[in-house]
Amino acid sequence: MTEYPLFSEEKSVEAVNARMGDAVSPRMRAVMATVVRHLHEVVKECDLSREEWAAAIQFLTDTGQMCSDWRQEFILLSDVLGVSMLVEAINHRRPQGATENTVLGPFHVEGAPEYPNGTDIRLDGKGDPMRVQGRVADVEGHPLPGALLDVWQTNDAGYYDVQQPECQPKWNFRGRFRADADGRYAFVTARPRYYPIPDDGPVGKLLAQLGRHPNRAAHIHFIVTSPGFDPVITHIFDPDCPYLTEDAVFGVKDSLVARIEPAVDQQGWAVEWDFALIPASTLQPGPVAPSS
Amino acid sequence: MTEYPLFSEEKSVEAVNARMGDAVSPRMRAVMATVVRHLHEVVKECDLSREEWAAAIQFLTDTGQMCSDWRQEFILLSDVLGVSMLVEAINHRRPQGATENTVLGPFHVEGAPEYPNGTDIRLDGKGDPMRVQGRVADVEGHPLPGALLDVWQTNDAGYYDVQQPECQPKWNFRGRFRADADGRYAFVTARPRYYPIPDDGPVGKLLAQLGRHPNRAAHIHFIVTSPGFDPVITHIFDPDCPYLTEDAVFGVKDSLVARIEPAVDQQGWAVEWDFALIPASTLQPGPVAPSS
Repeated sequence: MTEYPLFSEEKSVEAVNARMGDAVSPRMRAVMATVVRHLHEVVKECDLSREEWAAAIQFLTDTGQMCSDWRQEFILLSDVLGVSMLVEAINHRRPQGATENTVLGPFHVEGAPEYPNGTDIRLDGKGDPMRVQGRVADVEGHPLPGALLDVWQTNDAGYYDVQQPECQPKWNFRGRFRADADGRYAFVTARPRYYPIPDDGPVGKLLAQLGRHPNRAAHIHFIVTSPGFDPVITHIFDPDCPYLTEDAVFGVKDSLVARIEPAVDQQGWAVEWDFALIPASTLQPGPVAPSS
Repeated sequence: MTEYPLFSEEKSVEAVNARMGDAVSPRMRAVMATVVRHLHEVVKECDLSREEWAAAIQFLTDTGQMCSDWRQEFILLSDVLGVSMLVEAINHRRPQGATENTVLGPFHVEGAPEYPNGTDIRLDGKGDPMRVQGRVADVEGHPLPGALLDVWQTNDAGYYDVQQPECQPKWNFRGRFRADADGRYAFVTARPRYYPIPDDGPVGKLLAQLGRHPNRAAHIHFIVTSPGFDPVITHIFDPDCPYLTEDAVFGVKDSLVARIEPAVDQQGWAVEWDFALIPASTLQPGPVAPSS
């Protein structure tokens, strides 16, 4: 019989972590030991009352119960506490000059139509037109002909097509574009609008308790891929959005804020935006996931 | 428009916590800032992969979905990670000499029959008899006549009556006893047996991944109350239980391990066990819970 240390307030972390069996993988052991230590530190540093801990248990329970096939409230919680962005950041440390990544979000749809460069993706024709164009290259500036850009954003009112299947055309504000021989691409869309993340659940209540709004800063989504290069999941942000510095999910990075100018030769707006990709081998692989 | 700091790996905690509104209560602000800081530290110290974070989200979701009116999987999680015991410890720091508290557990039932001292609570007559007797007093040793002891435990096979309503008599191994003029109490029960916490859910799977068993060390539950004194929720533990130093919920404290000896004048076992209560005013009140 192994003799384990008994639990005490002072030795609580050691008492719990000493229980792990010999056959536990080193990674699982290290992660769980860290989780337990920080969990106990929260309780100790906050001097949590029994009522507060009960409220936390209830919140976690409500969050789990809100999840369904079409709603993931724990991911939403991770998003609004900055954890999703932190995990993205840690797993995509890119060299200087490479286009930075940000959150994928829940509204990407595979298989959007591929259009010729210059196509207008405002299938409903609404919103001020905005021409987005630029170049896909490696970090030394060599063009990447044939690079594929998968683009999606909300309509002029702040809703994705999949949120309003009955009043928006299918594939509204979505499209794929292929860079030409010089690595250049172009399309026309509407200027993006901010919109709220789903805030009718426990996470919405938490945001309200924290005095925070649920709005995402106005943005256009991109996934840019080219064979042999690391795909980049990213946004460009509208510099004039009132929520630019207070995106509810912390997706904004300085390097992703576009310059939007009045169009010279047409009505509306124009953005020049280049992407710089890095070879697929440049990213360090992450640690191995625990078995489940 | 307030300018908030943008999110970065280095300043992730500051970026999230800066968002809290001015009207947030100081307690909520302090607790959430601490939670966010430790959450981000876990991600950074473990260098969590996207797959690992996704597995954590799935585990929390499964845990929430396992909860029902009669099953609280997040409390179980809190129990096996030592958090429940830690919260109890922090909220019940007792002076030297006072009987220590431990977890209440989910099997207490209000309103057990009150019996004369010496009554046998083995309503099914099964198990080696064990006489438990002793004294309820204050920490200076003054007896507390009329103190009430609420007692419950599993039957000889490791199940509470409420877990087996069809094969155990109602109130089997439960009873209330009142201390006499000298503060003395006595009852007869069976020697307790270890038993598993519910391990057919996500927490059971986690325990298996951690190489841990689900067993609670053999114990008898008590709530001891006396007017003007702080009620103590506690156990006594069987020193010969094979799981004494590895109770699945970390409930064992050195001071709660009984000495069980062969009975002198009868078949079975005997335990002498005293309780020392402290005035209700001795405990520091905990901080105020956040509004919900």
